[in-house]
Amino acid sequence: MTLAEIAAALGAELKGDPDLEITGLATLEAAGPDQLSFIANAAYSRFLATTRAGAVLASPALADQVQTNVLLLDDPYLGYARISHRFETAPAPRPGVHDTAVIDPGVRVPDSASIGPHVVIEAGVSLGERVVVGAHGFIGANCVLGDDCLLRPRVTLAHGVSMGRRCHILSGAVIGSDGFGFAVHEGEWNRIAQIGNVILGDDVEVGANTAIDRGALDDTRLGNGVKIDNLVQVAHNVQIGDHTAMAGKVGVAGSTRIGRHCMFGGASVISGHLTITDGVQVTGMTMVTGDIREPGVYSSGTGHMTNREWRKNAARFRQLDAMARRLKELEKKTEG
Amino acid sequence: MTLAEIAAALGAELKGDPDLEITGLATLEAAGPDQLSFIANAAYSRFLATTRAGAVLASPALADQVQTNVLLLDDPYLGYARISHRFETAPAPRPGVHDTAVIDPGVRVPDSASIGPHVVIEAGVSLGERVVVGAHGFIGANCVLGDDCLLRPRVTLAHGVSMGRRCHILSGAVIGSDGFGFAVHEGEWNRIAQIGNVILGDDVEVGANTAIDRGALDDTRLGNGVKIDNLVQVAHNVQIGDHTAMAGKVGVAGSTRIGRHCMFGGASVISGHLTITDGVQVTGMTMVTGDIREPGVYSSGTGHMTNREWRKNAARFRQLDAMARRLKELEKKTEG
Amino acid sequence: MTLAEIAAALGAELKGDPDLEITGLATLEAAGPDQLSFIANAAYSRFLATTRAGAVLASPALADQVQTNVLLLDDPYLGYARISHRFETAPAPRPGVHDTAVIDPGVRVPDSASIGPHVVIEAGVSLGERVVVGAHGFIGANCVLGDDCLLRPRVTLAHGVSMGRRCHILSGAVIGSDGFGFAVHEGEWNRIAQIGNVILGDDVEVGANTAIDRGALDDTRLGNGVKIDNLVQVAHNVQIGDHTAMAGKVGVAGSTRIGRHCMFGGASVISGHLTITDGVQVTGMTMVTGDIREPGVYSSGTGHMTNREWRKNAARFRQLDAMARRLKELEKKTEG
Repeated sequence: MTLAEIAAALGAELKGDPDLEITGLATLEAAGPDQLSFIANAAYSRFLATTRAGAVLASPALADQVQTNVLLLDDPYLGYARISHRFETAPAPRPGVHDTAVIDPGVRVPDSASIGPHVVIEAGVSLGERVVVGAHGFIGANCVLGDDCLLRPRVTLAHGVSMGRRCHILSGAVIGSDGFGFAVHEGEWNRIAQIGNVILGDDVEVGANTAIDRGALDDTRLGNGVKIDNLVQVAHNVQIGDHTAMAGKVGVAGSTRIGRHCMFGGASVISGHLTITDGVQVTGMTMVTGDIREPGVYSSGTGHMTNREWRKNAARFRQLDAMARRLKELEKKTEG
Repeated sequence: MTLAEIAAALGAELKGDPDLEITGLATLEAAGPDQLSFIANAAYSRFLATTRAGAVLASPALADQVQTNVLLLDDPYLGYARISHRFETAPAPRPGVHDTAVIDPGVRVPDSASIGPHVVIEAGVSLGERVVVGAHGFIGANCVLGDDCLLRPRVTLAHGVSMGRRCHILSGAVIGSDGFGFAVHEGEWNRIAQIGNVILGDDVEVGANTAIDRGALDDTRLGNGVKIDNLVQVAHNVQIGDHTAMAGKVGVAGSTRIGRHCMFGGASVISGHLTITDGVQVTGMTMVTGDIREPGVYSSGTGHMTNREWRKNAARFRQLDAMARRLKELEKKTEG
Repeated sequence: MTLAEIAAALGAELKGDPDLEITGLATLEAAGPDQLSFIANAAYSRFLATTRAGAVLASPALADQVQTNVLLLDDPYLGYARISHRFETAPAPRPGVHDTAVIDPGVRVPDSASIGPHVVIEAGVSLGERVVVGAHGFIGANCVLGDDCLLRPRVTLAHGVSMGRRCHILSGAVIGSDGFGFAVHEGEWNRIAQIGNVILGDDVEVGANTAIDRGALDDTRLGNGVKIDNLVQVAHNVQIGDHTAMAGKVGVAGSTRIGRHCMFGGASVISGHLTITDGVQVTGMTMVTGDIREPGVYSSGTGHMTNREWRKNAARFRQLDAMARRLKELEKKTEG
């Protein structure tokens, strides 16, 4: 693409050579003269003096510091996000059905769809236009995939999973497997059939090796624009509101309801049967053990220290209640 | 099923219309007139007045509050668990071997077994009656699957894994992969061949994308009725006693021995080489760093608070040992 | 193997019967008269008196206590690691390409390579000598696998992943899937194409169901001899130095740089954009929230206690800052 084409695609104002050919994207540090870079954070402005980038996406506030061609945008990071797809390195899937795919004869595969090698599609499945099912995909009976869903290789959807348009499911994800539901009787666990489904909205992303369980009776639901990273556990009956994001290794226990526009840091864990309101941010590795009714940032845990210090402090944690009582006692004494 | 048939199946006393046809299960809130619901917890009794359910499973203590047909049972939740399987929405696997399955010619596949598309079964494998191996299953050499084992699509069993009857293995589970064993030599890691196996008892459940490693020398063992949720890590040589359950994202490090009838909350982590006795409950996200010799409930960690409060308190945690010493000093002073 | 052959293979001094045939390895407790065992830790020397092992690998310091044949070595644990591979129980993969594999016609498969059933290999892939791709493997376009790489069944490599020689990738691992990168705009997440790759050095191990994301712009890099256990999350742009090891369930957030010869205990979590120097050890379940500039052992969190004690102490943690202020106040008073 030329800089003029990129400017047009992004609605950016170009200051520089419109005919310069851009062949890739790179950071300010790594970019060469045929690559485009961006500056989204003033903290990186020290690289502007020395970058070899052919052009830089920049906001008006930082544009003056750019020594090379500039594409002016209010939100250069968003511009980078949008233009990045033109430089995608993944091979574009070709429409068609691979010979080795096993597809129930009643399923209608749109001509625009791409079904990879060794895929299995069971009866009653509905596939939207331009759907891609990567190699080794398994689409269980009666699943519904909206237009433009992209399933990377080795995605497993159990029966009855439904997703909207433009969902992006990464390799190893398992959606719709049985929730962990048992009735205890005389110390033994009696499995409960999980007869709810999983319903994903439009533009949902599900990360690699993530597991989203089907509901016990009601459905597990992820709203529009929900983004889930790798190795996340979403238990049965969970509901996640629109545009909420969860980083890697998050766990959400059963029947919890999470609002819209929330963010969960990596490895945070949310107990079951809770309600988390809209606009909540939870920092990494936090343990959420109760409802959160106010938007804001929440945290738990303790940061790292040397093992020597930690041993002493962690031992005192066991005495913390006693310390609090002793403190109170002293206060009484000194008041008296 | 009619209510009379359900009553007979559960040994319940029916108060109401024996001929009412029930087509599904639902919560009290969601159920319609052709659906069965249940009340297992007095906290939900407020829904009894307004439920539209065709019938409700209830204990004698709550039955009077039900306005519709009642099925009386001592343990309605257990009744719900048992009857739920009649309403399973997953398609029943048909016996037979799919054309695309690759099965070692020496393996005997019972006529009652169901082997899905693209399955691979290596030499020396023993398959019980009515075994189901879902699509993309891999059964390594010399595995043994007891009668009625159900492997959902995309389960991987490395060589030599053995399981009893009625085991239920969810999609993405990997059982029997190499334990993480190395001998350090001059700062480099020398891999140790993992020549133990994995042995599961009867009625074991293994969740989606869970990993259970084979033993280094001895076997990794899960007893009868053990239930493991999604994304759990069970390291090499671990032993888990009968009817112990682990929620999602639990991790058990190598060579730890866990008793019978234990329960581990989500994301709890148990260090290696420990012994946990029978009847231990560990709450979610707890770090178990030493043996547990007494039954009971155990916990660690701290619950969430606002990030602002947390920053202050977590900073003080670093001073906790010093605070304890200062408190002691003050006590001395005031005593004197 | 005879004891003489084992002694020769390990460069060990044999005290005993050179012709004794050894058929397996076992612990001192479990070994029988045709099995070899080892003593690597004086804590286990109590088993030396009663072991039925045919022979024992032992250091000179402990050799006198062995009542049976001894193989003398400076580092018996290393000797055990090295000899263990002679007793590997996994069937040796046979060279050749399975009929059901789908391989781009332009890919050259060495005669020494073994390509299992239902494998998919895309265009532009380079395979080294003696490479093994287990059943259901997916090798995306333009991947490079060095000599002697061993991919267990069901490994997924997205396009452009490169690995050196002798890498060992366990079942369910996903390497090179898209990093979790989005630009927020009006509360919605705009996906950023992840155009970096993943580059693994020689002798890298990647555990079962582990996910290693491709870089956003730069590459995600794991050095030589890096060992990663099961269910680990390595986010985009992470760099891990040579011979660093990570136990199960570790998570490393985006763009963090980790040094050489580090060790991360199970379920520890490292925040994004950090720098961890060489030689750092992090204990299990630690939350690393800032750079670590000095080698040493680091920890966080608190160990388990009874739930009753924990409730009291955890409640006080919320008051910790207030307690510290009150303590200070008291100190002022008593000084005055």
